Amino acid sequence: MPDFVRRVPPGDDRERLTCPDCGFVAYENPKIVVGSVVSEGGRILLCRRAIEPRRGFWTLPAGYMEMAETVEEGARREAWEEARARIELEGILAVYSVARIGQVQVIFRAGFAEPDFAAGPESLEVRLFAWEEIPWDDIAFPTVHWSLHRWREMAGRPLGAPAGNPTEAEAAAMRRNATPLDPQPGL
Amino acid sequence: MPDFVRRVPPGDDRERLTCPDCGFVAYENPKIVVGSVVSEGGRILLCRRAIEPRRGFWTLPAGYMEMAETVEEGARREAWEEARARIELEGILAVYSVARIGQVQVIFRAGFAEPDFAAGPESLEVRLFAWEEIPWDDIAFPTVHWSLHRWREMAGRPLGAPAGNPTEAEAAAMRRNATPLDPQPGL
Repeated sequence: MPDFVRRVPPGDDRERLTCPDCGFVAYENPKIVVGSVVSEGGRILLCRRAIEPRRGFWTLPAGYMEMAETVEEGARREAWEEARARIELEGILAVYSVARIGQVQVIFRAGFAEPDFAAGPESLEVRLFAWEEIPWDDIAFPTVHWSLHRWREMAGRPLGAPAGNPTEAEAAAMRRNATPLDPQPGL
Repeated sequence: MPDFVRRVPPGDDRERLTCPDCGFVAYENPKIVVGSVVSEGGRILLCRRAIEPRRGFWTLPAGYMEMAETVEEGARREAWEEARARIELEGILAVYSVARIGQVQVIFRAGFAEPDFAAGPESLEVRLFAWEEIPWDDIAFPTVHWSLHRWREMAGRPLGAPAGNPTEAEAAAMRRNATPLDPQPGL
């Protein structure tokens, strides 16, 4: 890569990575992650990561959205790639921003379109977990905690507007694996 | 820019723009647009674009999300930049994918936090329109049509799960500016 410099392009109002030779501006934009909480009879599909970061930890089937697909297509593609699952999307459960790393996560609620699943190349293992069985200490990312708790909050209910980021206190409670919610009706 | 070639990187499954000299992979990802339908007493805030594309046409306050902000912060920033409006977000109205151009739009429903607004540098003019006054023939982008119709569909109701892309028929009906919906309760 050429030695880009940080410079405010004409008509812009903030510094961008710019090639000092040709003036090419390499705009940096947040990336979109699409994923799903896929459940069947109250049990949730989780994948144990075969790749870094967080190899060996459990996550939702999710990954970077590709060009020329919709968020829905991306979520279905990731479920296939990581869990060899054909899923049916119900709607968006949450839209989380991870501003520190420039990421937006669009998380769907989903069911199985076909009953089979299996570890894809990026997963060591894929399993259904009842809520009480979820390996809270081995969850890969905070947003997986958030998504699971949001799923539980909405279980058995029509989807409302998607959740945004939790407050710091809510996020901390979820990290401690407590459910910061009133007792829920049966899943 | 060096002459990038399209090549499948090791461990990947599709072609990426790659520098033949150093192997740098320029991943292309969809970009996120954040925007809002801001209303007050049933009237909606629209901005007439001062910049290409679609200069002179009407749009919502919306634009590309920046690094290190949340979708909510981005939507508020765009309302300020384009319409000098301080807004209060209620929730997500829609998440649209414009796959052809690699774009995901997160559209909020919002009200005014302060009553003032004015054209920012990217707007020729900013106005509140009653539904019947909306200049349908001079709307800048299809997703503005979609967002406005979604807003009307949800007017006076709690936000449900955000809409995804309309079907082709629904989109066509919205382009024809018809409201493809049952008569709505008063706005």
